[in-house]
Amino acid sequence: MEKTLISVLLLLVALSCTLAKIEKKDTKEVKETRPKLPQTLSRGWGDQLIWTQTYEEALYKARTNNKPIMVIHHLEDCPHSQALKKVFAEDKELQKLAEKFVLLNLVYETTDKHLSPDGQYVPRVLFVDPSLTVRADITGRYSNRLYAYEPSDVALFLNLNSLLS
Amino acid sequence: MEKTLISVLLLLVALSCTLAKIEKKDTKEVKETRPKLPQTLSRGWGDQLIWTQTYEEALYKARTNNKPIMVIHHLEDCPHSQALKKVFAEDKELQKLAEKFVLLNLVYETTDKHLSPDGQYVPRVLFVDPSLTVRADITGRYSNRLYAYEPSDVALFLNLNSLLS
Repeated sequence: MEKTLISVLLLLVALSCTLAKIEKKDTKEVKETRPKLPQTLSRGWGDQLIWTQTYEEALYKARTNNKPIMVIHHLEDCPHSQALKKVFAEDKELQKLAEKFVLLNLVYETTDKHLSPDGQYVPRVLFVDPSLTVRADITGRYSNRLYAYEPSDVALFLNLNSLLS
Repeated sequence: MEKTLISVLLLLVALSCTLAKIEKKDTKEVKETRPKLPQTLSRGWGDQLIWTQTYEEALYKARTNNKPIMVIHHLEDCPHSQALKKVFAEDKELQKLAEKFVLLNLVYETTDKHLSPDGQYVPRVLFVDPSLTVRADITGRYSNRLYAYEPSDVALFLNLNSLLS
């Protein structure tokens, strides 16, 4: 029963984020006339953290600095992305941990299929270790969307020390 | 004689930017401890313009908004990139023209070979039309580095109306 409930809940999450995505696409041209300028790489996920711009940059920095990468896929209009972002940005312990990673947040998917092992959805967090292997084994709590995280799941991130050399 | 002079000049340009690149890589770890935060997508190329984060985003926006893309490859430590950036950011006519493009400035190369038709160097500016074709025919003034532009070449950008629908 609980499992069904979780499934239904996640379906709703998926649906609302997909709807947010579609709506975002429709209103893009309107939106483009009034963005917050200048735009930042952090996009609200932690202005005091160092964010990379592209996946290529993140891979380069992971290799040269021997650090793992945290890739956050999100959408600005998705309420579940917003909720996760709020917790992520405000949790001091999490922000401290984030410094140990090469950080990348993306609102557009890369062409690298390894970053969407079970599909493209948001919010979706993947880790890449310093050898540049996408760690598909590091998952959240949901069996139908392995890399989805809810605000209450951020404690999972704090257990990632094994990734750090 | 003039041609030889230009060639020697460009060789020096190339050499200094390559040196700047190597130096940048060496000092990256040191630099990372003191970045300007939060980082912006404009990186000084025009804070009032709308910049895309990734090439994937630029392609999506070009297609949906029927706009051409301007991709500027540069390095923050390269004096020739800096000189071009200064002119680009300060020239009002150019900033006005830039609004008609989907804009992307990159300090890390993409994996798309179409964006480096004659090699990877900086500064290097490429255009992609709304049908997502990289316009390798739009070149600067230098035969050995077709997509290199000097500050005095920005007038060439102002003649790009043919690209705009």
